[in-house]
Amino acid sequence: MGNNNRQMSLGAMMFYPSGENIASWRHPEVDASQMLDFDYYKNIVQAAERAKFDLFFYADNLYVWDRYDSSIRGANSIRPEPITLMAALASVTKHIGLAPTISTSYNEPYHIARKMATLDHFSKGRTAWNVITSSADEEAQNFNKEKHLEHSTRYRRAAEFVDVTLGLFDSWEEDSIVMNKESGEFADPEKVHYLNHSGEFFKVRGPLNVSRPPQGHPVLVQAGASESGKELAARTAEVIFSPFVPLEDAKAFYRDVKGRLAKYGREPHEVKIMPSFIPIVGRTEAEAKEQLEIVGDLIPDALCRDLLSHYLGQDISHLSLDEPLPFIPSQENNNQSKSRIDRVIRLLEKERLTPRQLFKKIYNNSFAGTPEQVADVMETYFKEEAADGFIMPFAHLPGGLDDFIELVLPELRRKGLFRTEYPGGTLRDTLGLTRPVNRYSR
Amino acid sequence: MGNNNRQMSLGAMMFYPSGENIASWRHPEVDASQMLDFDYYKNIVQAAERAKFDLFFYADNLYVWDRYDSSIRGANSIRPEPITLMAALASVTKHIGLAPTISTSYNEPYHIARKMATLDHFSKGRTAWNVITSSADEEAQNFNKEKHLEHSTRYRRAAEFVDVTLGLFDSWEEDSIVMNKESGEFADPEKVHYLNHSGEFFKVRGPLNVSRPPQGHPVLVQAGASESGKELAARTAEVIFSPFVPLEDAKAFYRDVKGRLAKYGREPHEVKIMPSFIPIVGRTEAEAKEQLEIVGDLIPDALCRDLLSHYLGQDISHLSLDEPLPFIPSQENNNQSKSRIDRVIRLLEKERLTPRQLFKKIYNNSFAGTPEQVADVMETYFKEEAADGFIMPFAHLPGGLDDFIELVLPELRRKGLFRTEYPGGTLRDTLGLTRPVNRYSR
Repeated sequence: MGNNNRQMSLGAMMFYPSGENIASWRHPEVDASQMLDFDYYKNIVQAAERAKFDLFFYADNLYVWDRYDSSIRGANSIRPEPITLMAALASVTKHIGLAPTISTSYNEPYHIARKMATLDHFSKGRTAWNVITSSADEEAQNFNKEKHLEHSTRYRRAAEFVDVTLGLFDSWEEDSIVMNKESGEFADPEKVHYLNHSGEFFKVRGPLNVSRPPQGHPVLVQAGASESGKELAARTAEVIFSPFVPLEDAKAFYRDVKGRLAKYGREPHEVKIMPSFIPIVGRTEAEAKEQLEIVGDLIPDALCRDLLSHYLGQDISHLSLDEPLPFIPSQENNNQSKSRIDRVIRLLEKERLTPRQLFKKIYNNSFAGTPEQVADVMETYFKEEAADGFIMPFAHLPGGLDDFIELVLPELRRKGLFRTEYPGGTLRDTLGLTRPVNRYSR
Repeated sequence: MGNNNRQMSLGAMMFYPSGENIASWRHPEVDASQMLDFDYYKNIVQAAERAKFDLFFYADNLYVWDRYDSSIRGANSIRPEPITLMAALASVTKHIGLAPTISTSYNEPYHIARKMATLDHFSKGRTAWNVITSSADEEAQNFNKEKHLEHSTRYRRAAEFVDVTLGLFDSWEEDSIVMNKESGEFADPEKVHYLNHSGEFFKVRGPLNVSRPPQGHPVLVQAGASESGKELAARTAEVIFSPFVPLEDAKAFYRDVKGRLAKYGREPHEVKIMPSFIPIVGRTEAEAKEQLEIVGDLIPDALCRDLLSHYLGQDISHLSLDEPLPFIPSQENNNQSKSRIDRVIRLLEKERLTPRQLFKKIYNNSFAGTPEQVADVMETYFKEEAADGFIMPFAHLPGGLDDFIELVLPELRRKGLFRTEYPGGTLRDTLGLTRPVNRYSR
């Protein structure tokens, strides 16, 4: 990159409250009974803040996974609602960024703009928004619909949703608020703007009833790895949360996405690519291997089979987990994650795999090793332009995060790859992203 | 009542961030520049908590009021979003109840149930929900519609919305979560319930992905004073936020609403009637009068005329503020607050009023006096069964609240009418309301 002082960005992620794994509540070090106690989250995020993580990233979905018999029985389907969680965290943190996940398929842009603008004010500019389109029919059924929106429809809706929201954030120009008590003038109406948006999915008049967020707008995070996902990301995302894949694939993805930016008038440094990377750390290789085995054993066979049925969009409960899968699933009839099913197809076209082997390959984006080994992998991805940083969904919480902080961060710091202090200011300052100019002030 | 130890319930209300008055930002003691700084709210609510208020109540609307020229120019249209605010407050308070206002006309029950359930868990059972139906076409226009829902439609929707939400709160029975790490059983599917609701406005499958709130469900607050509003309140509300009206009218309202409870199988003590009462306190009568005049002068003539046009649903900008209003407005063509327009009609049928006089009558639910006088009024309403307590939208914040705490609360305590300590536990415990039983466990 030419710049030897470049440092990586790090996000601490929570997929499920007790870790990335759907059965992480079973991990011997986890106490999932505190899952709806706010102190559980406060302790985790304050620990990440003491360690100078860029942001805390929280996944979401809008239903209880109940498609198969083992779902409610074995999976943790309970989670706090993201905006409520992040708002509660804003008042007990000072520096770390807060990235809730919000679906564009089952929300209204005016509500989300208000909530995120409020959160950005309250946190003094520390918000990011992980834009997702949701994936399951069961979510649609909690919102007056039978079927989830079809893939390309939901991406068009997502693009329009983000546009409307960004427009609402610009409602109030920076100098629109006069607050002259004597004259009685609160605001200058010339500097308060209507959106009057009328599109395929939304009609929104504006203005927003919250003034412009300190960051201009929250940092936009996007995870889609499908063609539509990458295009939406190139157009609007500032952080891309990508799958953790082998180095050469990760470099290709990095080049692909950065290469799409020019057509939207954007520079490569305006987007951070941060793969999802689970560090499983042991003080020795043997300890790391043992940790990995514990995680591998968390999901019982019945749950493994049912998760795989879910991913494939096809019930495989009649098949053995240990004999080669007798079919390759098709893209058609699958309206869930396009990039995941693509990956499954590529894997199965390359080699015959049993359901258990397939599951391990698609469900596992972890790397187990000693602190030095983990830090070396991260350094390689970072220096080889496969990543600008990492968003880390730890295998179990808070232990996985604590181990990483205690064992790996000192290694990364020794290499000069991670900060020792926050730069101060907003999340944009922490990430090195610029503050967008209000469209009406240009 | 027979019970001499009965004490009143008190809510500290925030209508606009700097007070009840739409121009309260102009009050000499107000610093409205901090309106999006969380510390402003934290200080106010922590003060109310030190004073042992039952709850903090925050109003809301979903638009910038811009119907007339003076609107954006003179009114404070900026406010933090209520759920974001309450979640941030939950982590810096311990005892006080948190009552956000949420519209049933422009939300989805699954989202609201998740957010309120999360907030109830995080606050350890301190939430209330002020159920409103919204009132302006401008709000509809931020949510894909041209016109606000017609009055009876929006009350039917509100009733269904509340029913769905209460159903979702019951998704998980108290003993549904097993969390047996060894067997891998997270929950007992027999005790996790689908709602499968299909009604006039909503189709919602469930279950909710947050377990049952500590309070069973948030305390339901309702303000409607129209016929449909009173009926909805009698059916579901636990706190009724009513207009502050003369004693005999207040007693009649109290009897009316409590009398409607029996047909829904409810007891009079299951609903608290809490009029909206603005105390304007001076150490002397002269000081109170002076305070009242400051508040009366905050709204400039142009804004007064435009607010009245808004309330009447009819532009009166061509009329003098000081000559009798030449017409009586009609219920028809008015789809805003039915109880307010009813009150206007009753006032104008009784006597000829100028717009300015009418405005003062409908916009003013304050009582100005010495601490003893204010405490006496509150005692009378309480003892004469016109009120079980009060929700107080102070004329300016934080000063109006601080004055009340310093000057009036000691009087109420001297009379034995208000607590000196919280009882401990949830908001239901503070208010003396019972915890609802899960419908599936009955």
